Amino acid sequence: MAKEENNLLDSINSPDDLRRLSVEQLPEVCRELRQELIQQLSSNPGHFASSMGAVDLTVALHYVFDTPRDRLVWDVGHQAYAHKILTGRRNQFAHQRTYGGISGFPNPAESEYDTFTAGHASNSISAALGMAVASELNHDEPRRNVVAIIGDASISGGLAFEGINNAANTPNNLLIILNDNDMSIDRNVGALNDYLTHITTSKAYNRLRYKVYRFLRKFRLISERKKGVILRFNNSLKAMLTHEQNLFEGLNIRYLGPFDGHDVERIVRVLKDVKDMEGPRILHFRTIKGKGYGPAERDPASWHAPGKFDPSTGNRLSQAKGPQPPKYQDVFGETLVELALKNPKIVAVTAAMPSGTSVSVMQEALPERTFDVGISEGHAVTFSGGMAKDGLRPFCAIYSSFLQRSYDHIIHDVAIQRLPVTFCIDRAGLVGEDGVTHHGMLDICYLRSIPGLIVAAPRDELTLRNLMYTAQADNHGPFAIRYPRGAGHNLDWLQPMHSLPIGKGEKLTDGTDVMVISVGTMAYEVAQAIEKAKEQGVSAAHYDAIFVKPLDEEMLTEIGATRQPIVTVEDGAVTGGFGSAVMEWLQAHGYSNPVTTIGIPDNFVTHGTVAQLKKLCGMDADSIAQAIIKANKS
Amino acid sequence: MAKEENNLLDSINSPDDLRRLSVEQLPEVCRELRQELIQQLSSNPGHFASSMGAVDLTVALHYVFDTPRDRLVWDVGHQAYAHKILTGRRNQFAHQRTYGGISGFPNPAESEYDTFTAGHASNSISAALGMAVASELNHDEPRRNVVAIIGDASISGGLAFEGINNAANTPNNLLIILNDNDMSIDRNVGALNDYLTHITTSKAYNRLRYKVYRFLRKFRLISERKKGVILRFNNSLKAMLTHEQNLFEGLNIRYLGPFDGHDVERIVRVLKDVKDMEGPRILHFRTIKGKGYGPAERDPASWHAPGKFDPSTGNRLSQAKGPQPPKYQDVFGETLVELALKNPKIVAVTAAMPSGTSVSVMQEALPERTFDVGISEGHAVTFSGGMAKDGLRPFCAIYSSFLQRSYDHIIHDVAIQRLPVTFCIDRAGLVGEDGVTHHGMLDICYLRSIPGLIVAAPRDELTLRNLMYTAQADNHGPFAIRYPRGAGHNLDWLQPMHSLPIGKGEKLTDGTDVMVISVGTMAYEVAQAIEKAKEQGVSAAHYDAIFVKPLDEEMLTEIGATRQPIVTVEDGAVTGGFGSAVMEWLQAHGYSNPVTTIGIPDNFVTHGTVAQLKKLCGMDADSIAQAIIKANKS
Repeated sequence: MAKEENNLLDSINSPDDLRRLSVEQLPEVCRELRQELIQQLSSNPGHFASSMGAVDLTVALHYVFDTPRDRLVWDVGHQAYAHKILTGRRNQFAHQRTYGGISGFPNPAESEYDTFTAGHASNSISAALGMAVASELNHDEPRRNVVAIIGDASISGGLAFEGINNAANTPNNLLIILNDNDMSIDRNVGALNDYLTHITTSKAYNRLRYKVYRFLRKFRLISERKKGVILRFNNSLKAMLTHEQNLFEGLNIRYLGPFDGHDVERIVRVLKDVKDMEGPRILHFRTIKGKGYGPAERDPASWHAPGKFDPSTGNRLSQAKGPQPPKYQDVFGETLVELALKNPKIVAVTAAMPSGTSVSVMQEALPERTFDVGISEGHAVTFSGGMAKDGLRPFCAIYSSFLQRSYDHIIHDVAIQRLPVTFCIDRAGLVGEDGVTHHGMLDICYLRSIPGLIVAAPRDELTLRNLMYTAQADNHGPFAIRYPRGAGHNLDWLQPMHSLPIGKGEKLTDGTDVMVISVGTMAYEVAQAIEKAKEQGVSAAHYDAIFVKPLDEEMLTEIGATRQPIVTVEDGAVTGGFGSAVMEWLQAHGYSNPVTTIGIPDNFVTHGTVAQLKKLCGMDADSIAQAIIKANKS
Repeated sequence: MAKEENNLLDSINSPDDLRRLSVEQLPEVCRELRQELIQQLSSNPGHFASSMGAVDLTVALHYVFDTPRDRLVWDVGHQAYAHKILTGRRNQFAHQRTYGGISGFPNPAESEYDTFTAGHASNSISAALGMAVASELNHDEPRRNVVAIIGDASISGGLAFEGINNAANTPNNLLIILNDNDMSIDRNVGALNDYLTHITTSKAYNRLRYKVYRFLRKFRLISERKKGVILRFNNSLKAMLTHEQNLFEGLNIRYLGPFDGHDVERIVRVLKDVKDMEGPRILHFRTIKGKGYGPAERDPASWHAPGKFDPSTGNRLSQAKGPQPPKYQDVFGETLVELALKNPKIVAVTAAMPSGTSVSVMQEALPERTFDVGISEGHAVTFSGGMAKDGLRPFCAIYSSFLQRSYDHIIHDVAIQRLPVTFCIDRAGLVGEDGVTHHGMLDICYLRSIPGLIVAAPRDELTLRNLMYTAQADNHGPFAIRYPRGAGHNLDWLQPMHSLPIGKGEKLTDGTDVMVISVGTMAYEVAQAIEKAKEQGVSAAHYDAIFVKPLDEEMLTEIGATRQPIVTVEDGAVTGGFGSAVMEWLQAHGYSNPVTTIGIPDNFVTHGTVAQLKKLCGMDADSIAQAIIKANKS
């Protein structure tokens, strides 16, 4: 088992240690890193396949660049686990994504090696360009190198394009590493991806260019930084070789590649070659998602985040359990197909998340009516608006925190025109282990101010089905349905659907002392809390709002008229949230009931299990019970 | 003066009338349209130069395509005036942009020829793709043509790129018209723009391709729709000619051009040629902004929206007036330079709006520290985040309604990291004539839920200066300052600056019966309203919040303790706005003062003068006075 020992890795506590090794030792470092990832992630689940694929690039980057002084800006950061291990967090790695442990994504609050927040795709080029420009303008400091590392899915996002478009005409020294594994979380899509796939048609040309560049550089015919520039790389080679134009070069970014992203010694050589080249440039590396672990290489999509597994066999370890309630995602996917089979105008749209949202169920059943538009949340919404304008009924499924990218599109391209787009807002509320960048904590706040938008949240699986049915049964204009990540509580969810009246809530429990109004699946915690309060002699009524907008005025009139204290409970930010909407209504209608709002306080929330985080935010059944009892006393 | 008569235009009440003319008559139609635009816009100001440049394209599009059955989707719509005149709105044109009159932008609520909202840039390709896909899926209807008309500035936005990226791998028949006048509202920037400028290097090649295509088509060697396809355009020509690759073709969109965008007969011919081509394609037309009116051709930037002018001379008609208070934009621009000269870390960022925001003042004074990133609001913010991360102090100036495009970037790329980016939110509140898509009505709502973000609004010019000073004097994390379009009320604004305490408001007027809290420049109307209320015997106190977030708790404690009714006044949506924040605070601290909120009601707001719209929304001094008096009675 000598081969399985981590002799080199054990000696690396920081990139400085790595840089003391010889280039020839790097393949072994990569091997040991992969073993470490397999061991660690088999028992403490995380984003496996992307990180395996980026091991060699990561080692080479820290080897060549003077991190943390030089800046590595990771895009998304599913690829950044090896980076975490090399930058002094190996011992903490067993606790990644757990409450109190390190984050699953690069996190500047955690390490000086993590230069920028990296939870939402496509931001690395813009952020790195900012750092590169800062390096040019900070005349009091020596210039630093700035490197953005972006995947082929992320680079197709509009933000990345805006970054490239701007990089080319701003003085800067930005290096973009394109880590191309031809995969998004799911299959990658889009014209740019097709382009990258077929770029090998130019392989001979690109190889030749690189070789000429190396030759000229060796004989000092090209000198980038010094005054005596004999040849400028860009124009010289263009003239010397052929007229064939690369897409990136059309945008005035120098392009070199594609190179093998798993030959670490070669990567080091290439990086050294281009390190002091002037101006923005892209290095294109081909990698294999899951590289170094057979089962993951063969099925990278399902090994994106595989959960626990047996490292020796690759068998997934499923918790032994009886029949379980389905995930809300499954209910959504199955119901969507059920509705689409009856209503030929229904189409589905998702932005690179077919499996995550279960739009994949529709993709399988009705591929010609399902659109995975890639990482482009803004386009997903405007495209849905265009389809709705001409008679289709799009169901646009996007995670709550990613939908923040579509905010203007919801307003300008859908709401102003009152177009019947149904926004299926997945991962609403606290999401758990993915942490601060992924919690869907703001959607109630940012949506309820938009005129004419219906905002609803089901308390259970059947209500989700009924809301989906309602959205397509008639033209109510834009209609948002928010629901959480993961499983609910009911096995018998597959009940017949019917329309719900817009803006009507439901009284679930009678009570006399405190009026509790819950939004969505918080009804579950509230029901428990009401039982606990009852044990303490407090009788609380329970209302399910169902609709955050429009509010149920009849229900609120009934509640207001009791003059009893009100407690609102939502799985979202309380600042500007549903509780605030209730206060607005009460004030506008002359009621002065005291209102206590329960939800996510005015802070960003860390990672941990959903249960841990709910407790942290005072949103668990115990905390809600305390709040009910306290409201009764006041 | 026979030449000045509009004989043809007088006969055109709809595109059907236009289509009855011969091709040879079209140049005269274009000439008459331009005369009409000059006459109309000289007395009723609007977006002049863009619309002049797009006259020939507009005539040709309506001539060749069967509008409104075929869809024309205009991007932004500064170019769409000729379209409005040709589609039955000539008589209403004198009232464009006025209250009750037609909108300055394409507006689906106004005409079936206006297919989609077109106030924010870059959405046309996504929306049109949606319509093209709907046409493919609506099997019960004959297929329709869908055309997106987009400018060279708009096409550089990330949303347009996402649309193109998706168009290429979705079955559709989308035609994209690139109206390239090499201008944004200001000088256009970015790598894509450079590319478009230099695309003429390929002119011979592109001409040849088009000629070959016409030849093959003429002899029926290419037949697009019929079964017997002999040659497929794309591959055949690629093979027959050269290997030179166009950027758009790299993205799998067929490209043809550039063509002269002012030769209407030729445009008609080209459009007819490509009308039944299969799959997505781009036609590139070169146009001249202001075409047909000498003064505008010579200085297109300042003729973007020139105001009133003498049509015969081109002299601008300025209202004779004495010394006037400056625009908030001027105060911002001058103050920014003043601060930047003292603080070398300050940089300025704008997204294609240097003149509109007056970032142009800094651009002139300190060009190397000023970044106009083009139409890319998302990138502008993330780029600012990157610069702030490495020690610079970016002032990022974007219009409130356009900043909606940057919502996620503010959260993910700035706020989570608490980076010291100062958001200078221009055009906050009602903007007047630009109407529904341009009112900055939501920024208070969508910003105040973001943890850790400071949100401030100056009541006057000096407070704007002091807030800007405060933002850079220390590291307070992200700092938003919102201010309205247009002039304030003070001539002596150029006073020395000093730091304001974060989260401290100011009491402006003592009063006993009603407590009024205003946000920003609504302080002006409130001061008048308080005088009016006083005449009716109601004594109202006036507090200026200055900070929407964090709230001034000391001030609110003082107000709450009076137990008097509270009236909040803000230039933004009341749903989830500042008034709602006040209610949240009162409830959390046990106060039960009744609260009346004044601001934009829960509706989208039309166009008109700011004064008209304030009255419409109950935000004028009279309405506020009434609300104060009513609050006192309740």
